[in-house]
Amino acid sequence: MTDLVNDPAFRSYAVCSAILAVKMLFSGTYTSVMRIRNKGFVNPEDATAFGAAASNEVEHPAVAHALRIQRNDGENIPLFFAIGLIYVLNGATPFGAAVYSWTFTIARLLHTVAYTYHLQPWRALSYGVGYACLLGMALQIIF
Amino acid sequence: MTDLVNDPAFRSYAVCSAILAVKMLFSGTYTSVMRIRNKGFVNPEDATAFGAAASNEVEHPAVAHALRIQRNDGENIPLFFAIGLIYVLNGATPFGAAVYSWTFTIARLLHTVAYTYHLQPWRALSYGVGYACLLGMALQIIF
Amino acid sequence: MTDLVNDPAFRSYAVCSAILAVKMLFSGTYTSVMRIRNKGFVNPEDATAFGAAASNEVEHPAVAHALRIQRNDGENIPLFFAIGLIYVLNGATPFGAAVYSWTFTIARLLHTVAYTYHLQPWRALSYGVGYACLLGMALQIIF
Repeated sequence: MTDLVNDPAFRSYAVCSAILAVKMLFSGTYTSVMRIRNKGFVNPEDATAFGAAASNEVEHPAVAHALRIQRNDGENIPLFFAIGLIYVLNGATPFGAAVYSWTFTIARLLHTVAYTYHLQPWRALSYGVGYACLLGMALQIIF
Repeated sequence: MTDLVNDPAFRSYAVCSAILAVKMLFSGTYTSVMRIRNKGFVNPEDATAFGAAASNEVEHPAVAHALRIQRNDGENIPLFFAIGLIYVLNGATPFGAAVYSWTFTIARLLHTVAYTYHLQPWRALSYGVGYACLLGMALQIIF
Repeated sequence: MTDLVNDPAFRSYAVCSAILAVKMLFSGTYTSVMRIRNKGFVNPEDATAFGAAASNEVEHPAVAHALRIQRNDGENIPLFFAIGLIYVLNGATPFGAAVYSWTFTIARLLHTVAYTYHLQPWRALSYGVGYACLLGMALQIIF
């Protein structure tokens, strides 16, 4: 696979995917922090561990908000993992791969910031840019 | 990677993955449409933008329905992205890759239609066909 | 792609991914079983099929618990699918790939057992081990 390691198109995809993966891991930690800070536990064993009141099946608003950030990532970033790789393996130019990968990655990082701080229309805008990157790559693969 | 671009097994996987990615993007848009049409917002900043009443943390039934379609996709299609690729990279025949990829893709497209229009047992059936494709490929990789 | 099929680093990644995929499929089935056993349906068409009372939009606690297991997998395992593959394609040693892949896979299998039987701190511990594997691979890709 030496040809792939030295392919700058693959390199853009690889580094961006790793950055996005780290971001998703940190988003999971953010949810845990919100859970602990607000004593918002739904698993009884967790409520006990943190001396919180009995939990119920409705999430604390701050936890639900954090989970929506994760859910939105979960609906978009795995598409980049798959479609970005196929796009590169299909023989993308280094320029095309870099533009798509970095645009998508920066848009998704800004989306998290905008979602966390309730910044509209920035959240919708950054979502739209990421969406357009995925749609563009997918359509280029199909046609 | 020229050998991969010209591999018909990879081609089936690539085109089907791109179709499924577009479908998932459209499902996200469907959820947004349901949200706007029913004024079912959980983010206060979105409720304000669309002049809706104060949101709460329980989703509108039509939005919850749309989110379940997305969640079911999210539990199945990323498995195809990963397992389908490994199956092809493991040296699948063009015929095997085409049968698995297209059967899975058509089953998942039908699943969305069946879920949207509340059509049982078609939803369960199309889910089962997709499940069988994933299980078949995964077991072939292991053994 | 014959070089990849014979690469022991890719082989570790491939077998572990397939095992994790089968686990995720079984977790989906576990949720369905919990749904049927507790008559906890949110789709009216499913409630009718199983002669259950009219459903509402709040999940039965046992179903919500099963869905949380799936959600936690969904936030972590697709990251392994992507990052594990990039790690291998970047020229991982067979030893490094085997250690990361099997540690992650065993940690995630134990996580499911711990979550199912409400075993803390084992759930948190197995989550942390999987998290560390993903973070380690991602950082090695970036730097």
